[in-house]
Amino acid sequence: MGRHELEYPQEALNAIRRHGERASYALKTIHTLINTAPIVHVSFNPPGSPFPVTLPMIGQMGSYARPSADVDDPLDLYLHGYVSSRFFATARNADAGALPVCVAASHVDGLVLALSPFNHSYNYRSAVLFGHAALVDDDDEKRYAMRLITDGVVPGRWENTRQTPTAAEMQSTSILRVSIVSGSAKIRDGGVKDDKHDLNDQTLCDTVWTGVVPLYSAMAEPIPTSYNKVDLPCYAAEYLDDFNRDNKEHSVAAAYK
Amino acid sequence: MGRHELEYPQEALNAIRRHGERASYALKTIHTLINTAPIVHVSFNPPGSPFPVTLPMIGQMGSYARPSADVDDPLDLYLHGYVSSRFFATARNADAGALPVCVAASHVDGLVLALSPFNHSYNYRSAVLFGHAALVDDDDEKRYAMRLITDGVVPGRWENTRQTPTAAEMQSTSILRVSIVSGSAKIRDGGVKDDKHDLNDQTLCDTVWTGVVPLYSAMAEPIPTSYNKVDLPCYAAEYLDDFNRDNKEHSVAAAYK
Repeated sequence: MGRHELEYPQEALNAIRRHGERASYALKTIHTLINTAPIVHVSFNPPGSPFPVTLPMIGQMGSYARPSADVDDPLDLYLHGYVSSRFFATARNADAGALPVCVAASHVDGLVLALSPFNHSYNYRSAVLFGHAALVDDDDEKRYAMRLITDGVVPGRWENTRQTPTAAEMQSTSILRVSIVSGSAKIRDGGVKDDKHDLNDQTLCDTVWTGVVPLYSAMAEPIPTSYNKVDLPCYAAEYLDDFNRDNKEHSVAAAYK
Repeated sequence: MGRHELEYPQEALNAIRRHGERASYALKTIHTLINTAPIVHVSFNPPGSPFPVTLPMIGQMGSYARPSADVDDPLDLYLHGYVSSRFFATARNADAGALPVCVAASHVDGLVLALSPFNHSYNYRSAVLFGHAALVDDDDEKRYAMRLITDGVVPGRWENTRQTPTAAEMQSTSILRVSIVSGSAKIRDGGVKDDKHDLNDQTLCDTVWTGVVPLYSAMAEPIPTSYNKVDLPCYAAEYLDDFNRDNKEHSVAAAYK
């Protein structure tokens, strides 16, 4: 009964040319990788510099026009974080106020340790989006994005903190909306792939440990402030538990694929 | 008795303009952040595209000319990973065969949960390097870099796997050397910084949980291949133990700074 899964069209900008079997162009896969990364890396070109500049930022996919949109729908990327005055100046002065950016999100799921250094690898999931970034001026859209981004840190956090933003907070918070042009993802999972000539080397196989070491993000025991007066609420406690269990399970499952 | 700590000069390209108290230009800090990141994000500009392209790669700082150099010495960055044919074509055709790149490495150390969404933050350590990337052609330098990168995954791994690389492996491994032009790091640690007007709001303080949730990278139980015949060797077991203990301790300590 499901509809056809949407994909970003393959073209020169986003095509995965090597290990095509690891590629995905599905919106769902790419958007989920962006949403589950605590930070994304945003790159742009400042005028007059030969170097692109890369900034770590917080990003979440969303649709202000249709807030009920799913993660596999066409969405915009909302970005928050310190964006240099140079970034903003560049965005403001860009054609139509929109700056070409590349946004990358990567998860490392395991070390793949083989008989030869050459066959070492990582299990990983990485996504990249290309688009045009513009400053969000509308206060309603800004609040929509602020909520999206706060709930991206801990789901439910927005409605469990002080609302609404003060005028000063609205003023000093900058949100970028990236209209997506293209994107792709690349996923490596599974075990070690050794070469036949190494596998046939008995001495080598008798001395070198081979396998996968799962790698994942974990959260330690929360540390309350000196002025905190409440127990860790359910919405946060459950999220932390799920985060730890799901991430660990995913990294182990990836090794067995 | 220590010498003066080396820094990258502050200039337009690398200056941290906001939260200057979080900035570091020390080679030791920046190089260590790069070396301890399992992956770095490398950005470059393909000719004819308005978008920079960002690729996840493995990177380690080193000096082929002076292999005994310390992490706080001037070093090159060696990069390995799939670099698109477009990347290489761009590097080969760049002025003097050297392509301007920006390399970013980021560690997220904790969620900082405040009374207002506005004062939410992350504890993090991020580093950025700017430089010119060129393909390494010399086989000796290539082997030096391959060892550096393999030992970056698990220290001691190179000499505990099959050596030396075959001619086919040498041929099909591409290594980039980045000559560093500039760099900087930004570090946020400590607890929650709430505003006075929120702290004075008794109802708010009585209902909102505030504090830091430490976040760190962890390794799960290693999963041997079906043909593995040896116990996990000491060099690997110790590294995994250290990795798990040090990362967790660091994320907790960061919250108390």
